[in-house]
Amino acid sequence: MSKKTTTFKLGNTTIGDGNFAVIAGPCSIESEEQLLSTAQFVKEHGACGLRGGVYKLRTRPGTFQGLGQEAYNYVKVAKEKTKLPFVAEITDPRQVSELYEVCDMFQVGARNMHNYALLKELGKIDKPVLLKRGFAGLISEWIYAAEYIRIEGNNSVALCERGIRTFETAYRNTFDINAIAYIKKHSDLPIIADTSHGTGERELVSPVALGALAAGADGLIVEVHPNPSVAKSDKDQALTFDDFKTLMSNLNTIAKAMGKEITL
Amino acid sequence: MSKKTTTFKLGNTTIGDGNFAVIAGPCSIESEEQLLSTAQFVKEHGACGLRGGVYKLRTRPGTFQGLGQEAYNYVKVAKEKTKLPFVAEITDPRQVSELYEVCDMFQVGARNMHNYALLKELGKIDKPVLLKRGFAGLISEWIYAAEYIRIEGNNSVALCERGIRTFETAYRNTFDINAIAYIKKHSDLPIIADTSHGTGERELVSPVALGALAAGADGLIVEVHPNPSVAKSDKDQALTFDDFKTLMSNLNTIAKAMGKEITL
Amino acid sequence: MSKKTTTFKLGNTTIGDGNFAVIAGPCSIESEEQLLSTAQFVKEHGACGLRGGVYKLRTRPGTFQGLGQEAYNYVKVAKEKTKLPFVAEITDPRQVSELYEVCDMFQVGARNMHNYALLKELGKIDKPVLLKRGFAGLISEWIYAAEYIRIEGNNSVALCERGIRTFETAYRNTFDINAIAYIKKHSDLPIIADTSHGTGERELVSPVALGALAAGADGLIVEVHPNPSVAKSDKDQALTFDDFKTLMSNLNTIAKAMGKEITL
Amino acid sequence: MSKKTTTFKLGNTTIGDGNFAVIAGPCSIESEEQLLSTAQFVKEHGACGLRGGVYKLRTRPGTFQGLGQEAYNYVKVAKEKTKLPFVAEITDPRQVSELYEVCDMFQVGARNMHNYALLKELGKIDKPVLLKRGFAGLISEWIYAAEYIRIEGNNSVALCERGIRTFETAYRNTFDINAIAYIKKHSDLPIIADTSHGTGERELVSPVALGALAAGADGLIVEVHPNPSVAKSDKDQALTFDDFKTLMSNLNTIAKAMGKEITL
Repeated sequence: MSKKTTTFKLGNTTIGDGNFAVIAGPCSIESEEQLLSTAQFVKEHGACGLRGGVYKLRTRPGTFQGLGQEAYNYVKVAKEKTKLPFVAEITDPRQVSELYEVCDMFQVGARNMHNYALLKELGKIDKPVLLKRGFAGLISEWIYAAEYIRIEGNNSVALCERGIRTFETAYRNTFDINAIAYIKKHSDLPIIADTSHGTGERELVSPVALGALAAGADGLIVEVHPNPSVAKSDKDQALTFDDFKTLMSNLNTIAKAMGKEITL
Repeated sequence: MSKKTTTFKLGNTTIGDGNFAVIAGPCSIESEEQLLSTAQFVKEHGACGLRGGVYKLRTRPGTFQGLGQEAYNYVKVAKEKTKLPFVAEITDPRQVSELYEVCDMFQVGARNMHNYALLKELGKIDKPVLLKRGFAGLISEWIYAAEYIRIEGNNSVALCERGIRTFETAYRNTFDINAIAYIKKHSDLPIIADTSHGTGERELVSPVALGALAAGADGLIVEVHPNPSVAKSDKDQALTFDDFKTLMSNLNTIAKAMGKEITL
Repeated sequence: MSKKTTTFKLGNTTIGDGNFAVIAGPCSIESEEQLLSTAQFVKEHGACGLRGGVYKLRTRPGTFQGLGQEAYNYVKVAKEKTKLPFVAEITDPRQVSELYEVCDMFQVGARNMHNYALLKELGKIDKPVLLKRGFAGLISEWIYAAEYIRIEGNNSVALCERGIRTFETAYRNTFDINAIAYIKKHSDLPIIADTSHGTGERELVSPVALGALAAGADGLIVEVHPNPSVAKSDKDQALTFDDFKTLMSNLNTIAKAMGKEITL
Repeated sequence: MSKKTTTFKLGNTTIGDGNFAVIAGPCSIESEEQLLSTAQFVKEHGACGLRGGVYKLRTRPGTFQGLGQEAYNYVKVAKEKTKLPFVAEITDPRQVSELYEVCDMFQVGARNMHNYALLKELGKIDKPVLLKRGFAGLISEWIYAAEYIRIEGNNSVALCERGIRTFETAYRNTFDINAIAYIKKHSDLPIIADTSHGTGERELVSPVALGALAAGADGLIVEVHPNPSVAKSDKDQALTFDDFKTLMSNLNTIAKAMGKEITL
């Protein structure tokens, strides 16, 4: 028997109710046009949330680190026109209040799964948190990390499997589908699949996303870009608009067979 | 675009033709009754092949190593009554001719992916080979291992993803679903999922099998036992008859939605 | 040819000058008596720095998280009596000024190697930083993490190899001795070995520390406790006073043979 | 307390008696001149055994697979002139009698740690076996693999740590120095370090070898080539003659300080 999943609201959408929620958008916000066109396209094809990097955590200092404040204006326009709730990564406990204004869900990235100062701060707010698994995060540690948030009072937490580091070099990360099935059995938290980072290769993103749905995931977060070849970050793993449209159609087909809906 | 998959026959079933083939049976053959009842049940519910260990490779010398010769008689009975082709593991190049009589497909286990002496011997026969990935086998090495067989003349090879070793200890192995998607794009070989070893936990075997189907696998090999709690090997990961029946029903639902059939 | 190592001062000791520096002390500070007796013992036997956890990062909320403010008083006493510089972990960018008063070297733990907000803050101060490698931190990422500190103006950074996560379960982590040799060849940063975390097993800490010295490490950070069996954290990996004394004697023998000294 | 190590003879040398034995030679035997000049050089500088590939296990079919029979003549010449015992890899249980004539120690490579058919065959002979750890071989499995040999009657087995597969890509493998210390505590088998494969990078081979000695290894097996840049296999990790001479001098210095000798 699986555990009953705790649900929460992202905009008007309920996460964790047995259906499948899709959050999509660019890795980094690069321009108003880029964000808005992507937001409109993914909304039209069934996404219930918009992702987009405001501040980017880059391994190497000196590389593109996001537009920062400038991006907020584009986010406001995109939210206004599409009504999609916005999901952005937070990396510093001192940025919560700044991001709070435009952000409807706070994402904790793989690099910060163990950043307890940040987790505690997110436990004090009234917006949901998407908690990614660390590069070598044990399932047990990941669930405890969620507890660091919940214990402070914020119970709206979803886990996000985004691939782990293994010996295999044919892809950027190894998406751990066992984790999807395991979380459904052993935790009450919703589990979202990030098959963009989980594979790192555009051609693998969609088949693995279908696999995550079939294995029981509560949703998907996926990178989409109008023209991946010129993306300022993660260009190898962003879906094109056409890829995304096909993926949504295939997700829909399998979800329906499983008695689920793609959540709007 | 995916590569066109090379097909071959297992009994009357074509492997790799776009449908989904299920091979099922006990980890070890323990008695005539155990093997026959399992064979009849899995046949009735849609399996196209019977698996069962004759000689078992056990990590620890002195533990149960399979019934050996005695098992052949039970296999003959089960094949006679169910008409299912039989898949057995081979571990020694000197055993090919002995196993050839009862075995319709030779399985090379994870421990022997790099056993080139064995692979070359299997390249000289006219029966299909199921080549499992090593515990830390790189995809590139795995494809080269298949080449060791094919170069000798036997082109009927299917790869089998059975989980890899990672830092995670919540399950026995980490099933690498990326590998399923990657092989479909980059190799012409059919790819079969072994989610029994790929998870090592009964409750994860079925959801991950559904994921493998959705991600594009050509089939599944799965351990089924009349009473897993008394199984002489792999008792934590064997499905019960009821589990198997439910799994086949769910596989069928998703396969149909994808325009595939469970191959008979 | 190895790179020339950048040196810096920890108290009166020069780190990175070709000799071998030993920092020792308890995992967590538990009482004045515990800290002081340990400090005096390790000083007497050749340590040049004192370690001790003030705030502990624990995987599980609700477990012992360090004495916090209370520990500062004990640190002041121990520093006053032994003149050892004090090394403590920092986990929150907002704690820099608080810790600055008692702390002579700031340690960034494995969980925070990728915490760029914290790294940038440490780049603005005038005290040295000990940067541990993440659980699955690539060498390239680790060197870039050090750049996040240096680019802000603080060039006194030492890397600390503390073991990585692998499939092996016989010990807590796998100490990566290749990393010691690699850093000596490819980076100008001093490299310190943490064989307490790198092994997680008391009986392995000392032999692996000797290995790290012979492979070229610039120093060692090691957990020592008056009575490990009652330690509030990391009790399996803390050395006893006797263990530490023997280790220092063996380090001294090998260092001398290599033409190095145990730095005082 | 460490376990008492079981000793055995390799030629006139005792392995496992507390001293340090060095086996050296080329990855593959390429010509009489190459083998003989290497054998003479390593003998002169303190090696007690000669290694050299007769049949090479290569991942990719069609690449150089060793000289086979032709190599035996060169081995005979080298043995005659240097009196060094010869260590060669065996990959097929059917090759034991053929290799027996020239081979004084049989090496089981990482790819065959789990090849129980081969291990059992080696248990029936009266020559020592060097058992390498698999790419993802658990320590417990490795020790059981040795038992497969010993249980048949051959007690002259040494384990060989040759690096494991991890997420790190800066080097070919990650040498697991914890394994050296662990085996000394928990097994009676001698443990030999292979830092050529354990690092895969020439510049790391020697410092990590010194680390292995200091951590308690009973010996070293290392690849040496007259001109690594033209080696037919493993050219990135072979030491030059000069490298080897320097390494032996440094091993000697540390061994002496530890009260050990480089075994002749």
